[in-house]
Amino acid sequence: MSERPDGIQRLFRDAVLEMTGYQSGEQPTGGKYIKLNTNENPYSCSPNVIQAIQSVAAAGLNRYPDATASAFRNAAASVLGVPSDWLICGNGSDEILTMVTRAFVGEGQTVRWPFPSYVLYPVLTQIQGAVGQPIAYNKDWSLPKAFFSGNGDPGLVFISNPNSPSGTQLGREQILELAEALPCPILVDEAYADFAGVSCVDLVTQNEQILISRTLSKSYGLAGMRFGYLVAQPQIIRQLIKVKDSYNCDALSIAGATAAIADQEWLRQNVAKIKSTRDRMSLRLQSLGFDVTPSSANFIWCRHRDQTSQEIYSLLKQNRLLVRYMDFDHWGDGIRITVGTDDQLDALITILNSIL
Amino acid sequence: MSERPDGIQRLFRDAVLEMTGYQSGEQPTGGKYIKLNTNENPYSCSPNVIQAIQSVAAAGLNRYPDATASAFRNAAASVLGVPSDWLICGNGSDEILTMVTRAFVGEGQTVRWPFPSYVLYPVLTQIQGAVGQPIAYNKDWSLPKAFFSGNGDPGLVFISNPNSPSGTQLGREQILELAEALPCPILVDEAYADFAGVSCVDLVTQNEQILISRTLSKSYGLAGMRFGYLVAQPQIIRQLIKVKDSYNCDALSIAGATAAIADQEWLRQNVAKIKSTRDRMSLRLQSLGFDVTPSSANFIWCRHRDQTSQEIYSLLKQNRLLVRYMDFDHWGDGIRITVGTDDQLDALITILNSIL
Repeated sequence: MSERPDGIQRLFRDAVLEMTGYQSGEQPTGGKYIKLNTNENPYSCSPNVIQAIQSVAAAGLNRYPDATASAFRNAAASVLGVPSDWLICGNGSDEILTMVTRAFVGEGQTVRWPFPSYVLYPVLTQIQGAVGQPIAYNKDWSLPKAFFSGNGDPGLVFISNPNSPSGTQLGREQILELAEALPCPILVDEAYADFAGVSCVDLVTQNEQILISRTLSKSYGLAGMRFGYLVAQPQIIRQLIKVKDSYNCDALSIAGATAAIADQEWLRQNVAKIKSTRDRMSLRLQSLGFDVTPSSANFIWCRHRDQTSQEIYSLLKQNRLLVRYMDFDHWGDGIRITVGTDDQLDALITILNSIL
Repeated sequence: MSERPDGIQRLFRDAVLEMTGYQSGEQPTGGKYIKLNTNENPYSCSPNVIQAIQSVAAAGLNRYPDATASAFRNAAASVLGVPSDWLICGNGSDEILTMVTRAFVGEGQTVRWPFPSYVLYPVLTQIQGAVGQPIAYNKDWSLPKAFFSGNGDPGLVFISNPNSPSGTQLGREQILELAEALPCPILVDEAYADFAGVSCVDLVTQNEQILISRTLSKSYGLAGMRFGYLVAQPQIIRQLIKVKDSYNCDALSIAGATAAIADQEWLRQNVAKIKSTRDRMSLRLQSLGFDVTPSSANFIWCRHRDQTSQEIYSLLKQNRLLVRYMDFDHWGDGIRITVGTDDQLDALITILNSIL
């Protein structure tokens, strides 16, 4: 560590000064790009969502929103089959992960996650002044034995399921086994679960250590709105309410999210389109010489047999198509490509044909 | 402290288990109330805001928002006369206060604020596992000498200016004096400053320890939208960016906030209306036997000479008019009444006439 800086910098917590912060995918501002780098949904949300937001805006925004987003919780409860007091809402599921970390993890405690995974987990750990314990996945993206051991006394475990960047999914029995093996909360981050068709939401009733976070950013096409939620037993929700900002979800997003989750038919059709494009994309990439990890999400993790991932990323970017190049210490690199529309897939394949 | 609870409860941080959480003002759900209890603006926002939100919704929300709300920062920079990299935006100014607390305050450190003031300051301190150091205002709501002393080595000072619940304002020279006397950041919470006409924003250029938070909830009539910002020197902003959730402001609120701050003429007219009603309200309350603290905000703090504050609060509520009854340990109680419309003021006076 370098010397402490001068002036007000010296007043920041060491944990904050030492960290680099979360690096999200590029959001280009100049010119037109095909964006397949941040796992956004290529389709616009249910029209009911837009209508709900516009009505709330028209009615005025001078009053505080409902602090606990009851309308959403009631609608979600009936879709998920859990009581509404098993739900807490957040300003995106990132805020849900923040709340859970702040509630369970003190300075110096250990937070465990499998590696490579969502790069926010180490960032949240650093902000708390806690100690990260990343444990590498096996080469086939299964969990190693070490992940089930109590070594290091973890205070919280993050599992992205399906995982990013791999798109792979752990079985429900493994999540249960993990909650039984470890004495801490297991936050199962199901940001991509709608694309997998398998969820662990109902496991929450079986083991109070299992907490499931969900987002409307991906499968509901609402990344710009920021809305996520956590499913957990009510004795957990009650504590988390104390940690969240009191009015953390605004009136617009509460109305939009309520309309979104009520329109399960839109979700079903959207997910079907994405999965169908994902299947085509997987075959096309393989025929172009990529090793493709079978995906349960709305993106595909791949490496080319002959050309480096970094080179392919750069050449695609020169052709105004963005994918996510990811290089993980002691693991290696690869390319994560979001499943877009069929037209975007065709454009991707055309460019790849010209550069490979 | 009681025994640690069983089950998953034992896994929460002590700091979280021991706290009670922030109690916001009542938000009635059944029936119609005149709401003068949470300092909301009684008027709907600038029509430009509604239009901006509706356009963004119509264009779709499937893409992530701009992580740093550049459009808002550029518009605000020209209104405030500071460069745009002196600004960071938050999901309400509550989130700004959260970010600042997490960046500067570690477990066991001291956070100072004058008392009585915004009841969120102790809550944020508790969540961090830090130690609160409330120092009582003098009876005339000026700061006591002790507030300028380094005793307890505060890592952060909160000052609500104008203060809630008093509505009183400290002078600019006092804020500067404080920043020179203490070796820590001074967060000046200017949620109500537009109603005062005096701000400390430009002091940020003179002393890097001065940080100014602002919200659009009050003077811009946008409590339902959640948008706030911090003005501070850029070496501070750069660290805070690492602590905030990456996409903390959604696309709807960024567009709405940008339209709001660009419409300074709406702000001027709105503030003029509120101030005019505030002046009438102050006179009417005095003539009904209230001791009224002169207010620089959009609410009035008062006590009746003959009747208890709690009794008046209850009788008003029975008449379907909500004000905020506040009882501060070792200080005493009183009533905080938000300045509403002229019609709401007339209704308040009518009810008071009937119950006093």
